[in-house]
Amino acid sequence: MENSNSLIEGNNLRVRKLELSDKSKGFLELLRQLTVCDSVSDKEFEDRFKEISMYGDDHVICVIEDEISGKIIASGSVFIEKKFIRKCGKVAHIEDVVVDAGSRGTQLGKKIVGFLADHARSMGCYKVILDCSDENKVFYEKCGFKKKEIQMVKYFV
Amino acid sequence: MENSNSLIEGNNLRVRKLELSDKSKGFLELLRQLTVCDSVSDKEFEDRFKEISMYGDDHVICVIEDEISGKIIASGSVFIEKKFIRKCGKVAHIEDVVVDAGSRGTQLGKKIVGFLADHARSMGCYKVILDCSDENKVFYEKCGFKKKEIQMVKYFV
Repeated sequence: MENSNSLIEGNNLRVRKLELSDKSKGFLELLRQLTVCDSVSDKEFEDRFKEISMYGDDHVICVIEDEISGKIIASGSVFIEKKFIRKCGKVAHIEDVVVDAGSRGTQLGKKIVGFLADHARSMGCYKVILDCSDENKVFYEKCGFKKKEIQMVKYFV
Repeated sequence: MENSNSLIEGNNLRVRKLELSDKSKGFLELLRQLTVCDSVSDKEFEDRFKEISMYGDDHVICVIEDEISGKIIASGSVFIEKKFIRKCGKVAHIEDVVVDAGSRGTQLGKKIVGFLADHARSMGCYKVILDCSDENKVFYEKCGFKKKEIQMVKYFV
């Protein structure tokens, strides 16, 4: 069952959807722990936030806020792909899962992936997929995932 | 450079975007060569077609029609994911590439992947990714892709 805004017991940690004001709560600094994430202006952030919001439940970004520090300490996104195969089925894609270095080993990653997978299930997807490095395989196995295929990439820049 | 509607020289093969009328040209029968693809009603097909069309250039399905037989003999899809990382970058995801069994070995798969990758580039994506089986790795290498990560999956049904 999806729990779209919940407090993790006794921890002052709020699990919820991304909000526009999260730019000032360290959301981009958190993503920087995942990969290249240059600074963007408030306008650029807002424009991208609005573009993603237009997809409604088809593209959701989940964050965990530490309500004491006011910082975003974990995040992940999921979007729903609409297909013709499997009786016009839907597949969810999880992307950009990251937990702040200072909060790792506290099950927050599992919380994020659980939130995103619950959302995918509630949207009627027949499966949820993601790509990860070999090192993160064990983590995702603990989240109920299994290795299936290989990821191929072509860079333009 | 993207060529959104082109005839393959001397072959009577038209490379173009999916049209609603392709249901009656064997589009679903083609997808059935890829995976489970149960029959759907005209209404279900139209609804899904419209849902995908609403995304405009952010979700494009490419097909190749044999204009002599009037059949769709190859297909593939691409959708554009909007991110915050990489200066609010965009990533393209290629899915459901299939070539009719009777037309394999004639470079149509390469044509489809080329069309989709060109679209991704023209949309400003910094990379295009896809998941495939180990057996298809060599094909995608010929299309300019490299192996990167592993795909993990969780089934709901």
